[in-house]
Amino acid sequence: MDSREFKEAATSSIDEIINYFETLGSRNVVSTVEPGYLRKLLPSEAPEEGEPWSAIRADVEAKIMPGITHWTHPGFHAFFPCATSYPSMLGELYSSALSGACFNWICSPAVTELETIVLDWLARALGLPACYLSTGPTRGGGVIQGSASEAVLTAMVAARDKYLRETVPESGLAEEEREERVMVKRSRMVALATTLTHSSARKAALILGVRFRAIPVREEDGYRLRKEALAAALAECRAQGLEPFFLVATMGTTDVCSVDDFEGISEALAEHVAPDQPGEVWVHVDAAYAGAALVCPEVRQSARIDLIERFHSFDMNMHKWLLVNFDASCFFVRNRDWLTKALSVNQAVYGNKASDGGLVTDYREWQIPLGRRFRSLKIWFVMRSYGIKGMQQHIRRTSQLGEEFAAALRARPDLFEIVTGPSFALTVFRVAAKSGEEPTPEEERNALTKALYERANASGKIWLTSTNLDGKFAIRLMTGVRTTERQHVETAVKLLTEIAQEVITGKPVYLN
Amino acid sequence: MDSREFKEAATSSIDEIINYFETLGSRNVVSTVEPGYLRKLLPSEAPEEGEPWSAIRADVEAKIMPGITHWTHPGFHAFFPCATSYPSMLGELYSSALSGACFNWICSPAVTELETIVLDWLARALGLPACYLSTGPTRGGGVIQGSASEAVLTAMVAARDKYLRETVPESGLAEEEREERVMVKRSRMVALATTLTHSSARKAALILGVRFRAIPVREEDGYRLRKEALAAALAECRAQGLEPFFLVATMGTTDVCSVDDFEGISEALAEHVAPDQPGEVWVHVDAAYAGAALVCPEVRQSARIDLIERFHSFDMNMHKWLLVNFDASCFFVRNRDWLTKALSVNQAVYGNKASDGGLVTDYREWQIPLGRRFRSLKIWFVMRSYGIKGMQQHIRRTSQLGEEFAAALRARPDLFEIVTGPSFALTVFRVAAKSGEEPTPEEERNALTKALYERANASGKIWLTSTNLDGKFAIRLMTGVRTTERQHVETAVKLLTEIAQEVITGKPVYLN
Repeated sequence: MDSREFKEAATSSIDEIINYFETLGSRNVVSTVEPGYLRKLLPSEAPEEGEPWSAIRADVEAKIMPGITHWTHPGFHAFFPCATSYPSMLGELYSSALSGACFNWICSPAVTELETIVLDWLARALGLPACYLSTGPTRGGGVIQGSASEAVLTAMVAARDKYLRETVPESGLAEEEREERVMVKRSRMVALATTLTHSSARKAALILGVRFRAIPVREEDGYRLRKEALAAALAECRAQGLEPFFLVATMGTTDVCSVDDFEGISEALAEHVAPDQPGEVWVHVDAAYAGAALVCPEVRQSARIDLIERFHSFDMNMHKWLLVNFDASCFFVRNRDWLTKALSVNQAVYGNKASDGGLVTDYREWQIPLGRRFRSLKIWFVMRSYGIKGMQQHIRRTSQLGEEFAAALRARPDLFEIVTGPSFALTVFRVAAKSGEEPTPEEERNALTKALYERANASGKIWLTSTNLDGKFAIRLMTGVRTTERQHVETAVKLLTEIAQEVITGKPVYLN
Repeated sequence: MDSREFKEAATSSIDEIINYFETLGSRNVVSTVEPGYLRKLLPSEAPEEGEPWSAIRADVEAKIMPGITHWTHPGFHAFFPCATSYPSMLGELYSSALSGACFNWICSPAVTELETIVLDWLARALGLPACYLSTGPTRGGGVIQGSASEAVLTAMVAARDKYLRETVPESGLAEEEREERVMVKRSRMVALATTLTHSSARKAALILGVRFRAIPVREEDGYRLRKEALAAALAECRAQGLEPFFLVATMGTTDVCSVDDFEGISEALAEHVAPDQPGEVWVHVDAAYAGAALVCPEVRQSARIDLIERFHSFDMNMHKWLLVNFDASCFFVRNRDWLTKALSVNQAVYGNKASDGGLVTDYREWQIPLGRRFRSLKIWFVMRSYGIKGMQQHIRRTSQLGEEFAAALRARPDLFEIVTGPSFALTVFRVAAKSGEEPTPEEERNALTKALYERANASGKIWLTSTNLDGKFAIRLMTGVRTTERQHVETAVKLLTEIAQEVITGKPVYLN
């Protein structure tokens, strides 16, 4: 493909992408293809001879699009959002042109320096404590990871390394003896989370090969980790001869968007090992989705984000609720030396004057992989194109849609019961208990709620996901997608109301 | 940014990108900015109000481009290449528009199914044994990872899990007792590699918290891991009560592009634990760069790629030498159950009919992160646009440039000595020993070679990297970049010849 062909191909692709976004609402949200559909449509081997763009282009609409689930569709209310926006796409376009494996500063100084700068911009925009700024008092800073899973894994690796450095003497032992001591210590270490923490915490512990304990949090806790539960878990570990070294605290749990009690957590930990003392527990705050809402000052206070200066790392995904396309997981740490000490592995071929002189940041030492893409460009484009006000407006507008959705459910207590929320544009609800006489048995309510859920999704107009809270089947509806407007929420309410009436009465109902 | 503004912005961006590639050769290869240059040029906070594209666009050329090191520059001879191409960029463009966190099949069936299909295409194009095909006899298959580092980490996690399943009884033990047994076993397990294995292997072991041993390979081995060295390492581990469970074998080492002796490795391992028996050592083949050359049948035979059917996993980066932009690390495994057993972590919110029915692939169980981008699209576009023949031509043409470069050095034995290669378009060389009298001391040759290296890089016209082989400082020159033509290699030869003469004689020399 030469320059002329590329210009033609890219120009027509841009037209098709614009048309895609402008007509998105008319498609089914979720793909309806059957497993294995694509293998029937494509040859089993790559072509011997190159093909013209016209042939490839035709296949995108004919063969790929039917298999796409549309995460930017206004009726996408499932999981959490996965964003994209025009400025973000321009960032990816430039990034793919400037492709490089930018593991060291010299591999493209702009890739490293823009990342440091825009993550400082973001830390300020979110109101994070100064200790998370690269220019702050504690040698903190941010780095872009691929996903919140990689961020929690990276934090856990650094935490294990910090704990071992603090609790196994580095000097005075022969290398082999220290390796033995470290191995024994490792077998006693335990990472903590809660039963509502994202599964990435368990996966990280599995990868590290450390023990993992999920502290139960339930409805009566407001689905939050509180001081008493954490203190009890710490005491239990000590009684079993285990050594807690890491805790994931969550701002916006996947199931219900609850926020753990940061104050209670820091108090319980201080009673276990005093802050900044050897053997303290590293606290990683997973704010993958809800962290975006911190661009609004009113959210910072209610989440007590000031308290994370007592913690060690914080992560949020701009690619969820903050208009940047996947991947842009923004990971901040209070002291970057914790990362570089844990993750530096040198090889002669990567030596260069700037790195050896210690004047620059080499982000390969802040992450699991070696190479990295130019991901800060799309963040920079989005933050400049929207401005702080534009980002705030997006969060407030979609949060307000969540309020309106919940209000509509509350107006029909005969049909719906809100289990949690709206919290960060997420409402969790189920079919109401029948009024009068004795309450509907839980099993029946689960079955009715499941029927409502499945029939709503079968409509193709909206996509919802479900959860299970201590045996209660519940539906999650999230209104954080950029394209979702009031009219789409009204459509969802009407659809759910109709189906709920049918499900409860056993008769079809049509609303105007 | 509305559709009209996006169309304008994208159209002008495409023109600028085409212009970038057409004038690339006139830029310095490596950025010459000073550390911290960008912070002086940008504000310390994001703007309150959104900015127009014209302001952002102007900053790309004025502030970002001076900080870019150009990996697609024809004079880029450093490290290994990091590719991009027009069809690949179109793939990224569509991928950013269709942004989604495609962890499960239902999250976009096309994302999963196209990945399975194009990785089968690639396995066939590379001539991998049938056991690495998704349709093959052993439940094999491929998955796109972000980098070779993530591939080796994923393989090591799966290998550890497989080894523990095979060597610690799963039944007949209480859960706590088994956890204890596993912890003790883990502390005895050791991952093996060589002194020329990429540093990602050591980093993976560090992340897993398992022991790591690098087997020395030296000049007299042809810089390859051979049977005797591996057998000795295995015996040493046994003598120390350690249990080897994982080995990285390399096709194309970073320093010299050597290929480990696959036959010798499989023989040594068979004598340790018989193949497919409990406790066998998992062999992961890291072919990150040189694996691309397997599109040429003549390479398959010399590398004995047929023997990898005795091994367990294989990884190569299309984003290095095969025309796809970063990231596209293609990771194949002989039995995908090894991955899913090690990496499955369930959470209620991710449940869905297709996954629960077991009819589909959920790639989240094949990788470290949960979410994933639509990366197969760019691979599909590149393979179709180039065809098998186009890819072969690219590999043969750039390999031939390596031959021509090495021939030019050989023609000047008074100036240069080739240490290794050309091997996969990589030549490693140093300043020749002085003829006559007694040989130049090694230290002096190192100093002369380093002077040659630094002055060549200071020219700005080419970028070379260096290595250190058992105390010998040597220069690496790689000719695998898509834009590199014969004339650019001739320029490099002329430059190196001039500088080498100056360095050796102490006088400036100008060649016509």
